[in-house]
Amino acid sequence: MRREIAEQGDAVAATLAEVRRRADDIRSAMTGRHRILLVARGSSDNAAVYGRYLVETHLGLPASLAAASIATHYRAQLDLTDTLAVCLSQSGRTEEIVETQRWAASLGAATVAISNDASSPLATEADVPLTTQAGEERAVPATKSYTGQLTALAALAEALDERGTLTPALDRVPAEVARLESSEEGVDGAVDVLAGAEEVLVTGRGLVFGTALETALKLEETCGRPVRGLSYADLRHGPIAVVREGMTAIVVAAQDGPMLEPLTGLAGDLAERGARVLALGGDDRLAAASSYHVPGPGLPEPVAPIALIVPAQLVVEALARRLGLDPDSPIGLSKVTTTDPD
Amino acid sequence: MRREIAEQGDAVAATLAEVRRRADDIRSAMTGRHRILLVARGSSDNAAVYGRYLVETHLGLPASLAAASIATHYRAQLDLTDTLAVCLSQSGRTEEIVETQRWAASLGAATVAISNDASSPLATEADVPLTTQAGEERAVPATKSYTGQLTALAALAEALDERGTLTPALDRVPAEVARLESSEEGVDGAVDVLAGAEEVLVTGRGLVFGTALETALKLEETCGRPVRGLSYADLRHGPIAVVREGMTAIVVAAQDGPMLEPLTGLAGDLAERGARVLALGGDDRLAAASSYHVPGPGLPEPVAPIALIVPAQLVVEALARRLGLDPDSPIGLSKVTTTDPD
Repeated sequence: MRREIAEQGDAVAATLAEVRRRADDIRSAMTGRHRILLVARGSSDNAAVYGRYLVETHLGLPASLAAASIATHYRAQLDLTDTLAVCLSQSGRTEEIVETQRWAASLGAATVAISNDASSPLATEADVPLTTQAGEERAVPATKSYTGQLTALAALAEALDERGTLTPALDRVPAEVARLESSEEGVDGAVDVLAGAEEVLVTGRGLVFGTALETALKLEETCGRPVRGLSYADLRHGPIAVVREGMTAIVVAAQDGPMLEPLTGLAGDLAERGARVLALGGDDRLAAASSYHVPGPGLPEPVAPIALIVPAQLVVEALARRLGLDPDSPIGLSKVTTTDPD
Repeated sequence: MRREIAEQGDAVAATLAEVRRRADDIRSAMTGRHRILLVARGSSDNAAVYGRYLVETHLGLPASLAAASIATHYRAQLDLTDTLAVCLSQSGRTEEIVETQRWAASLGAATVAISNDASSPLATEADVPLTTQAGEERAVPATKSYTGQLTALAALAEALDERGTLTPALDRVPAEVARLESSEEGVDGAVDVLAGAEEVLVTGRGLVFGTALETALKLEETCGRPVRGLSYADLRHGPIAVVREGMTAIVVAAQDGPMLEPLTGLAGDLAERGARVLALGGDDRLAAASSYHVPGPGLPEPVAPIALIVPAQLVVEALARRLGLDPDSPIGLSKVTTTDPD
């Protein structure tokens, strides 16, 4: 896992180049359509959450996450003729995702597959297969295939954005990913607080919400303890009542954007309730409102999530080792997931 | 809370009659539109999850849940001229929901408000205000206003369904709600296991997934302890690895439908991993696969969620009292929620 974390700068650069080569195909598939439906599960679903916010905020196109069971169990007959379905699976072999892509195509959707294997069923059956250039991933927890998915989603949005405003920021992403791979700033402190933590929750909002969910999932899977990912709003709307002395809260933020201020306020409120607050990313004010801080990328919010997960991966990997666990092969997990054997 | 739980049969009957009176208005608002966007937060969001599955499975119309921050913070300019926005807030005064409804209307959506107060801003500004007939709700945890929302959503789907197939089942709902209000079957056993539980998770899938989320939220808010609501698929796809000896898992199911069998299999797997499994609803096979069982309604899956939450409410209320807490005024919660004061 440690080695694969360190390969992400190259993987992101190669994925960006690869998807940019397919920009015309992406535009053709979208012609006459004006909605995007994202289909994914697990880590890929966390990438899809980012894709959803990016498409809506940046392209002004309605986007939503599919409930796969609508396809696989209820076989609902929706009209998807105005829809581009973007289906994500790292292996390209997760059965319910392949099945949902077939369902979407049968209902009139154009399909884009984002996988790490150009010969997988998901890729070969899609109108536009986009292949993340992560190479073989040996560790069970997805790292470079996940950042590859985020890159592919950002490059897909770039292809559909006539204004070209994402391009300069996206050009800077590979170098920021590479820089963060070897930065250990704040990682030891984060491992110290998490190693002794009983209850952990991770929160974020908007474009970085997927990063919060992915951080929670990785902590939970790799370290074998329950960790919750909650949106800022859901936390504010109720469960903040259960935040208590000794709980550890990770607040995930980009260095700018409309979510930074509310997230900084939340960090302060969590600390007041007695939680130990660890900031991931954000700016100096967020760091000051928190007891622990792991710096994030120097990238604007729309592309920040691609690099912001890297320090979280470093923390998870180091934490697993500190706890005497094998970060490469967490207990109870396998690489190709099958949601529904029945 | 106990008294308000017992008023739900009448409230559901009155809400059903009220929304049925507005069926023509609902059909007019939908004319020429072919998507439904649900806007909600907290308990109302759990109702919206039910609405989303019902609309997609029963009406064959694409439906999705809005991310309110897209409206309130990013002010994304989406084309919603083909969309009916259904906005839910019990008070009709939750600011971000009111603001998101205004945003949707400004982008071309027709709007339906589901609130419990016909004079609230959400209701008065909507094209079609639907008022749940829950009366005043004094206990902080929503009970009758929540089942009112589910009823309104089902009656909205009924209005848009030319085949009329929901009608016979919907006619039977008020009596089933009333029957379950006074049934204490299985409640004591559920309280026994939950009173001693350290870690609790609640799971469901498809049409009953919102019921699982609402059960988790109510347990968490009313009893002040962390409880997770996880979809079947998300649990299968990873976090099942963290299910361990002594954890308590609540499996929520309707008595029929395509989810019953996979959920029964999941109950067995959770028990094998050492979890104490409490089935809420389902059939005899699910009960047999579980250590504890609280029976649900004798209603088909598409309308079952309206009544299935009732036994969960009885368990939550009795559990709070067993724990020496006040079920009517949980610590740290207030009735009208404001997600974002900043």
